[in-house]
Amino acid sequence: MTVPRTDPAPLDAPRGLAGVIVTGTALGDVRGREGFYHYRHYSAIELAQRRGFEDVWYLMFHGELPGRAESARFAARTAGLRRLPAEVREALPGIARTSAVSGPSAGLRTALSLLGAGSGLRPVYDLPAGRRLADALALCAAVPTLLTALYRLGQGLEPVEPREDLPFAANYLYMLTGTEPDAARASAIERYLISAVDHGFNASTFTARVVASTGADMAACLVAAVGALSGPLHGGAPSRALDTLDAIGTPERIDGWIREQILGGARIMGFGHPVYRTEDPRSRMLRSIAQEFGGPLVDFAVEVERRVEAVLAELKPGRELHTNVEFYAGVVMELCGLPREMFTPTFCAARVVGWSANILEQAEDSKIIRPAARYVGAPPPQPVPAP
Amino acid sequence: MTVPRTDPAPLDAPRGLAGVIVTGTALGDVRGREGFYHYRHYSAIELAQRRGFEDVWYLMFHGELPGRAESARFAARTAGLRRLPAEVREALPGIARTSAVSGPSAGLRTALSLLGAGSGLRPVYDLPAGRRLADALALCAAVPTLLTALYRLGQGLEPVEPREDLPFAANYLYMLTGTEPDAARASAIERYLISAVDHGFNASTFTARVVASTGADMAACLVAAVGALSGPLHGGAPSRALDTLDAIGTPERIDGWIREQILGGARIMGFGHPVYRTEDPRSRMLRSIAQEFGGPLVDFAVEVERRVEAVLAELKPGRELHTNVEFYAGVVMELCGLPREMFTPTFCAARVVGWSANILEQAEDSKIIRPAARYVGAPPPQPVPAP
Repeated sequence: MTVPRTDPAPLDAPRGLAGVIVTGTALGDVRGREGFYHYRHYSAIELAQRRGFEDVWYLMFHGELPGRAESARFAARTAGLRRLPAEVREALPGIARTSAVSGPSAGLRTALSLLGAGSGLRPVYDLPAGRRLADALALCAAVPTLLTALYRLGQGLEPVEPREDLPFAANYLYMLTGTEPDAARASAIERYLISAVDHGFNASTFTARVVASTGADMAACLVAAVGALSGPLHGGAPSRALDTLDAIGTPERIDGWIREQILGGARIMGFGHPVYRTEDPRSRMLRSIAQEFGGPLVDFAVEVERRVEAVLAELKPGRELHTNVEFYAGVVMELCGLPREMFTPTFCAARVVGWSANILEQAEDSKIIRPAARYVGAPPPQPVPAP
Repeated sequence: MTVPRTDPAPLDAPRGLAGVIVTGTALGDVRGREGFYHYRHYSAIELAQRRGFEDVWYLMFHGELPGRAESARFAARTAGLRRLPAEVREALPGIARTSAVSGPSAGLRTALSLLGAGSGLRPVYDLPAGRRLADALALCAAVPTLLTALYRLGQGLEPVEPREDLPFAANYLYMLTGTEPDAARASAIERYLISAVDHGFNASTFTARVVASTGADMAACLVAAVGALSGPLHGGAPSRALDTLDAIGTPERIDGWIREQILGGARIMGFGHPVYRTEDPRSRMLRSIAQEFGGPLVDFAVEVERRVEAVLAELKPGRELHTNVEFYAGVVMELCGLPREMFTPTFCAARVVGWSANILEQAEDSKIIRPAARYVGAPPPQPVPAP
């Protein structure tokens, strides 16, 4: 029985709810002025440099880094969840075929929805915290399997079964290529994946939390977040930055190309971020990972970065513009042999852990997120004319 | 190239963003104190009584009721979109099997995602308004076909192909049962569907608009909304109200049962609404539709309603409690021969039109909906311990 509430007084919010604080979170934050972001109480970059993906996943879900024994247990548990149920495996060729135009992210949306429905997930509010966590682990562990299988099927290849003996990142590359990656590539992708787990209260994270606040099941929340991430205003697409490098082509064309873009007022893909006022900390880490590999692509990327900053200082003095996460993420993924259409899905394989941690946190609240709108149309009721 | 913006000053919002106005809308509103809600500038109830479903759909998408010729054109156009592409039809048995536990709404989430991916939908911001509208029409027109096919497959029956010569509501019942409905049932369901198209700025509508604000495609937005609707805090489930009638069983048990519930502080399903302070206008209309049919179920429902209000007036004087939309919606759907597990999906078949109208309106804005969170965890950065 609902007791009549008093209606809240309407409050006009800034456009797009910019700066409106919806919730408290203990999961992390981005400090744009300092060029710093953190997961729980640790620097995300330091985590990427010092711990494995599974440890960071554990940190996001449990609030603390695991000790050695817990770390091994958690890694074994999640590795055991990589294999897909037969009914989902059987549906993947059809999903891959249907998503041929839209790509692996749209396929992931469908496959994750199917996996969740098949698991008979229950609304998050009906579950004890441990069962919610188990649902989240199962879905996060399966995402790399879904993504790589969809990609391979789209290429006319057989999916590669997951291996339980490989860590998360190495197994991801293995399922994608069918070959166990070397240590340098596995480590590069692992650090990238860790850096992509979470990044403040972005639009897909907010979407996941809105759906979670209705009490919907874990899959409903994650599927919604995958959809939000597919929106071009959500953020970057690491493949675009490589497209920029391709468009420039050769070192001697750098300056002319940049001048043309800047004077024409065009956006240079891979540069600029709405929150960071400094260098993007992810960019700094990814540049240094790229430089571990070296080679002409890396030299060219570093030169383009240097020249964009120099030409901008000359043409628009006082305007700060730095590479964002897209720029060197694209370079690192290319160096690790990932095809460009898998750049955004690879991001997704990591971010699903951040979304899930947010859903688990939201599920501890019991208040639906439901703002209001102001009716601005013609005044009702006007008589309905006969057909 | 992003020009550094000034950061908005953080603004602490009421919990769940209650009463925070996110946007203006010309689609409609709910006036809880007056027991009135409207689509555009028309009473929703008057629309249900005077116009067909397709006319209301047109009104929501175009802002005006269609004239006679436009009405016929729109009905023909949408009827022509009911048939599913072969690749989606072929996937439905697998989706129905996998969603056997979770039911047709979870199946709809998957099937709609697949249909959208297969149509190669483009981000809403990349499209001219006419193309966005065409995407929305295609998905809305296909939802009844998806829902009824998933239901029948779940029952071990063959799906029934849509008929273009039937109006929306009659075709829905036809696809569900394989038999053309009589005029009374078709009209009853049509009025119910019209009353369910939209209802202010509810949580699934908000979800659809958040995803649309990232520029994601129409299917990504609708799939997210279907997920939000599945959350138990979102709102009702018309089958629960019938479960209440079943639990009471016979007229002589009404008073005892009600007293037990009220004194035990339990919620009586089908009664109470967070916004309406008066009788729910949908409830009034649906009661009168039920009374057109008459019979023991209707008499029993009316008696239960009367007794709940009387017992409450005695036990908790001053507390207003009325039937909500669930109560008589369940009765009407039962009278029309709909199985209980199709009550919520039937609601969905109508509401998808309201969500789509909201997505189309949101797509006219170009500002992402992205609020903020306040970090409340332990202060970072703390040094990351070695594994």
